[in-house]
Amino acid sequence: IHEPQLSESLSSSLSVDTQNLQKQIDELSTFSDTSAPSVTRILYSEKDVMSRRYIKNIMEASGLSVREDAVGNIFGQWSGYEPELSPVSTGSHTDAIPYSGKYDGVVGVLGAIEAINVLKRSGFKPKRSLEVIMFASEEPTRFGISCLGSRLLAGSEELVQQLKKTVDSENVAFFDAAKSAGYKNAEDLSSVFLKNGSYSGFVELHIEQGPILEEEGISIGVVTAIAAPASIKVEFEGNGGHAGAVLMPQRNDAGLAAAELALAVEKHVLESGSVDTVGTVGILELHPGAINSIPSKSHLEIDTRDIDEERRNSVVDKIYQSALSISKRRGVKLSQFNIVNKDPPALSDELIIKAAESASRELNLTYKKMISRAYHDSLFMARITPMGMIFIPCYKGYSHKPEEYSSITDIANGVKVLALTLAKLSIS
Amino acid sequence: IHEPQLSESLSSSLSVDTQNLQKQIDELSTFSDTSAPSVTRILYSEKDVMSRRYIKNIMEASGLSVREDAVGNIFGQWSGYEPELSPVSTGSHTDAIPYSGKYDGVVGVLGAIEAINVLKRSGFKPKRSLEVIMFASEEPTRFGISCLGSRLLAGSEELVQQLKKTVDSENVAFFDAAKSAGYKNAEDLSSVFLKNGSYSGFVELHIEQGPILEEEGISIGVVTAIAAPASIKVEFEGNGGHAGAVLMPQRNDAGLAAAELALAVEKHVLESGSVDTVGTVGILELHPGAINSIPSKSHLEIDTRDIDEERRNSVVDKIYQSALSISKRRGVKLSQFNIVNKDPPALSDELIIKAAESASRELNLTYKKMISRAYHDSLFMARITPMGMIFIPCYKGYSHKPEEYSSITDIANGVKVLALTLAKLSIS
Ligand SMILES: [Mn+2]
Ligand SMILES: [Mn+2]
Ligand SMILES: [Mn+2]
Ligand SMILES: [Mn+2]
Repeated sequence: IHEPQLSESLSSSLSVDTQNLQKQIDELSTFSDTSAPSVTRILYSEKDVMSRRYIKNIMEASGLSVREDAVGNIFGQWSGYEPELSPVSTGSHTDAIPYSGKYDGVVGVLGAIEAINVLKRSGFKPKRSLEVIMFASEEPTRFGISCLGSRLLAGSEELVQQLKKTVDSENVAFFDAAKSAGYKNAEDLSSVFLKNGSYSGFVELHIEQGPILEEEGISIGVVTAIAAPASIKVEFEGNGGHAGAVLMPQRNDAGLAAAELALAVEKHVLESGSVDTVGTVGILELHPGAINSIPSKSHLEIDTRDIDEERRNSVVDKIYQSALSISKRRGVKLSQFNIVNKDPPALSDELIIKAAESASRELNLTYKKMISRAYHDSLFMARITPMGMIFIPCYKGYSHKPEEYSSITDIANGVKVLALTLAKLSIS
Repeated sequence: IHEPQLSESLSSSLSVDTQNLQKQIDELSTFSDTSAPSVTRILYSEKDVMSRRYIKNIMEASGLSVREDAVGNIFGQWSGYEPELSPVSTGSHTDAIPYSGKYDGVVGVLGAIEAINVLKRSGFKPKRSLEVIMFASEEPTRFGISCLGSRLLAGSEELVQQLKKTVDSENVAFFDAAKSAGYKNAEDLSSVFLKNGSYSGFVELHIEQGPILEEEGISIGVVTAIAAPASIKVEFEGNGGHAGAVLMPQRNDAGLAAAELALAVEKHVLESGSVDTVGTVGILELHPGAINSIPSKSHLEIDTRDIDEERRNSVVDKIYQSALSISKRRGVKLSQFNIVNKDPPALSDELIIKAAESASRELNLTYKKMISRAYHDSLFMARITPMGMIFIPCYKGYSHKPEEYSSITDIANGVKVLALTLAKLSIS
């Protein structure tokens, strides 16, 4: 018996159909609730359902056998010649936050299907099966829960409990939303769980969402770790009142409390002393929201991340202390301080890092090892399988806005590295 | 020829139908877009149109002759026995900001109609005609313009120009909204203008919207001046981006710029050194408004007022300087700093003050002279007629929220003082 080896010529025979891939990226971007160039695609919306149909069609056209789980994670498999071995998987997401762009996630789904096609065209036959995954709701837009699909795949019992009482901002229950999109068995959440070891590895292709690769003129980023995210919901309550009639000393303005907390988040993040610590207030809402009313209620959603979990936790603690002291000083009630998630960072698997590095070298592409500051479904897949990520450059590091862009050349480089990495993992 | 005099017994023969008045206040509060106890009644909405019909019906049932102008100011007249003299007018508004209460404005409309009924029941006959006005859109909710109806009555050419390009947050043009509510001739704005001297006086009955009368146990406030309001719209723009991937030094966060400006408003107001200076950020909106997106745009609406116009203007200037320096320091663009209005204060007419004072004395009601810190349609009526206001106590000074409340006893006292004041002005 001999260890299978990749043919020396495989790297040179990999060719990406760039025209078709660009066409698919452009077509998918038209399934949007906001007008081009922005993209808005929210879990279980009509446009999300259309994009799912579109992806399943492409998977089928590529000869993959398609299955969909109870919440809408989609799997397309190319059977290996030793189908009893655990498959190698790859994938990403197609949902898009309001007014964002067309590459985040999409490159890792359409690119993964194209990577399979690239391998098929080269004549390569996988030993382990290869599987493309489109994860349900990487973005937290609708239900406030990021990476909903991959968290469930990784077996989060906590999330199962949480989803039973989760509603969106229109008060639509998670299960009702899922059913309206055709997922009749959404309540059977444990059927979504994957066993540890279901895959021998998982690799995600993604735009960098940062400026480093573009600035340094490097084609490929090989991710060694994913920063640890936490998200927090905060609510302050005061007495409100008429903006003309209530004098300043009598006020307890919930909006000013929110403004102070937003600035405190920035301050605590900067105090960490590390450039790797980030924190953002992306949502700040005032009630009743009238020019002549003192805000009686404010709602903030805070995101903070670090590659160092302890440092990140200390920022979360400081934010909580600030919320308490602001509430005390301003006489407003801190009616909610809810740490929605507080995830650990993830390390990439050494063998997958090695495979992606040698794939880049064999393809004569420059690469560097780097940290993913954004998190991804990979963070949760790492809980049940060895994980790795491949980054490609994107314009000015822009993401989550319409100006998000990666050239088709950079995308094709990423697809080739992904294809060769999958091939290597498939025979190992 | 002899000067007419009020009969000595008039004050003792004034009796308010409190049961019916309370019933009307309660009924009107059910025309709301939010559920009780909150009230939301927005210009030209279905509920606004219903409330207009309700008011016109009561005016007609009270024997007033009703007319409505091109934008929906409603007038109900009781003819005097010298109908060629300019009438005495009274009134207020029935629109309500989101999630507010049922007394602001309403007391001065239903209370004014009841004041006419009180005089009619007493056998009094007015020399000058008496006219009740329901002003269109005292609140700035829908089009960002406060006291829209009374500004037009006072002949604001500036507002005529502005309304041609005014749209609401759903991009509905002012004229289209007016037409959809039945005001087919809304474009004929100059027909709304009233000539200077159209009225010999105007008196508005209103809840205090402040705590003074209740705290001091006084029944009636006689307003001597109305504070000068200004309102400002501000927008900041930054690059936005992914909340994980963009490191802190690379950010120009439009949301944090807004938070800083909100706190600067408070600071500049407190710096004025006078308790009469107030400032409020009632609206603060972030775009795109996702937890994992750095805000690329922020929108604030600022309200500031003072009884001293110069001091108020100096606060507006300081807010502008802060907006500039925040924009510079944070590298965000100050894409809008629009002073929407910057009105002078108004002084009450001495004769009307005197009439309200003696009316209170004759009715054995305690009263005090006071400043109105909230502004009212009276501020604009003062441009074309001698003006006065009568305040009644309200619970804890609450206003613009569901807890807003005045007892029917306090309301009835206000109605009687209004009736007697109107009677005095009618014969002078
Ligand atoms: Mn994203
Ligand atoms: Mn993504
Ligand atoms: Mn009001
Ligand atoms: Mn009012």
